Amino acid sequence: MTTTQLIEQIHLKKSFLCIGLDVDLTKIPQYLLQTEDPIFEFNKAIIDATHDVCVSYKPNTAFYEAYGLQGWQSLQKTIDYINQNFPEIFTIADAKRGDIGNTSSMYAKAFLEDLNFDSVTVAPYMGKDSVEPFLAFDNKHTILLALTSNEGAFDFQTKLSDGTEIYKHVVETSKTWKNSQNLMYVVGATKAEYFSEIRKIVPDSFLLVPGVGAQGGSLQEVCKYGLNANVGLLINSSRGIIYASNEEDFAIKARVEALKLQKEMEEILK
Amino acid sequence: MTTTQLIEQIHLKKSFLCIGLDVDLTKIPQYLLQTEDPIFEFNKAIIDATHDVCVSYKPNTAFYEAYGLQGWQSLQKTIDYINQNFPEIFTIADAKRGDIGNTSSMYAKAFLEDLNFDSVTVAPYMGKDSVEPFLAFDNKHTILLALTSNEGAFDFQTKLSDGTEIYKHVVETSKTWKNSQNLMYVVGATKAEYFSEIRKIVPDSFLLVPGVGAQGGSLQEVCKYGLNANVGLLINSSRGIIYASNEEDFAIKARVEALKLQKEMEEILK
Repeated sequence: MTTTQLIEQIHLKKSFLCIGLDVDLTKIPQYLLQTEDPIFEFNKAIIDATHDVCVSYKPNTAFYEAYGLQGWQSLQKTIDYINQNFPEIFTIADAKRGDIGNTSSMYAKAFLEDLNFDSVTVAPYMGKDSVEPFLAFDNKHTILLALTSNEGAFDFQTKLSDGTEIYKHVVETSKTWKNSQNLMYVVGATKAEYFSEIRKIVPDSFLLVPGVGAQGGSLQEVCKYGLNANVGLLINSSRGIIYASNEEDFAIKARVEALKLQKEMEEILK
Repeated sequence: MTTTQLIEQIHLKKSFLCIGLDVDLTKIPQYLLQTEDPIFEFNKAIIDATHDVCVSYKPNTAFYEAYGLQGWQSLQKTIDYINQNFPEIFTIADAKRGDIGNTSSMYAKAFLEDLNFDSVTVAPYMGKDSVEPFLAFDNKHTILLALTSNEGAFDFQTKLSDGTEIYKHVVETSKTWKNSQNLMYVVGATKAEYFSEIRKIVPDSFLLVPGVGAQGGSLQEVCKYGLNANVGLLINSSRGIIYASNEEDFAIKARVEALKLQKEMEEILK
């Protein structure tokens, strides 16, 4: 999917909501455990109930790998289901990968080609040659960790080097990499005051924003400092939406929560 | 496996060699492609031919994920084969994971519990709460990226903050984390001169050293600055060993290459 197509979808749906498909078998309705593929059945129900109010789904690969082969199969079925039925959805493999060049190429192939996600999250610690293999795919996007939503973000990401925080060096330096037009950035909602700083470096880039909801970030605050002329934000919520209920009404309740955020977004877009 | 057991194995085998099982289907003997599981058959032959001259195997997960479900299954079969037949081997899942706390817990479970690796490599960018979930497992080890073997290591890892490089901050700070006794560190062989610096911070820790061989690092140089009283090094070689031949003699040739390194190590250990 191109960035232009993503922006069109945002305006069409009046939503820049991304829903995190982080399925934990201990938290889903227990009757689903009797189905052949509980993770996929859960995702399918959530997707069917919410695809018209969000523009993106983001499965975090950890939740699938934790269930081994079966989990990997559920991930494959989930992305195939979205691609076949809702090709207008921007899909994100939240994998936070990154390795030396020839190895990063293997990860890039796995997520952007074989599984056919529109984008993948990547960690910047290993630098340019660990990220560029992901950037080589046309109309695919690499979402680089800049400033994450967790407490540990302050351990290294905010350390000052030459008077500038490491996360800003990451964003600034990444602009010089080959095919940097395919970059987006992860910036945590729990750090809304940092958005204006990041917008000075990448005024036009899309930012993927985790941390609204369960982690305590505010949608209003993020939008105040982070919105740009093309919206430029994808706001992710996972637990707050998908675990709104663990009864048979879970998909309906998930829609209610997603709709609340969509309505807030519609107001902001006006 | 405990660190004491690993040290015992090193002295017993007179080797601190780790073999990287990074299987690329385009590089293995082509007759293997007719078998049901070429990746596993390749690994099994390499393991059978080299298990007495190395102390560790390190599959890089990228090479398995690149083959989807089939690849994940090959990874599972490979680790099961090692654990069942060669329980004295120290196994490393080279996964370079790292995510917010509850998500890192899922990765830790996947690699250290379900797949039952002895250790997993983890990226430090997201800080303390992204790493501590991996450290919570008894007699399991977390191998934190410190200074990697690639060119991109100089993008952010060597940036100075308060007069000290970021990679040293990572090592120093990680010592304060809960269960830090379960930490080892990745330090690239291509940067031998840095080993004495790292040994000032972690004199006793094990260092996993990629970059010998195909990437150009020198075993002698690394040992000069990196060895400690308990050896404290695991030297990885992947391509230089496993792709020594792509004919039917590939496992024999792999053993020849592994043995060369083992003999060098035996000399160094004297």
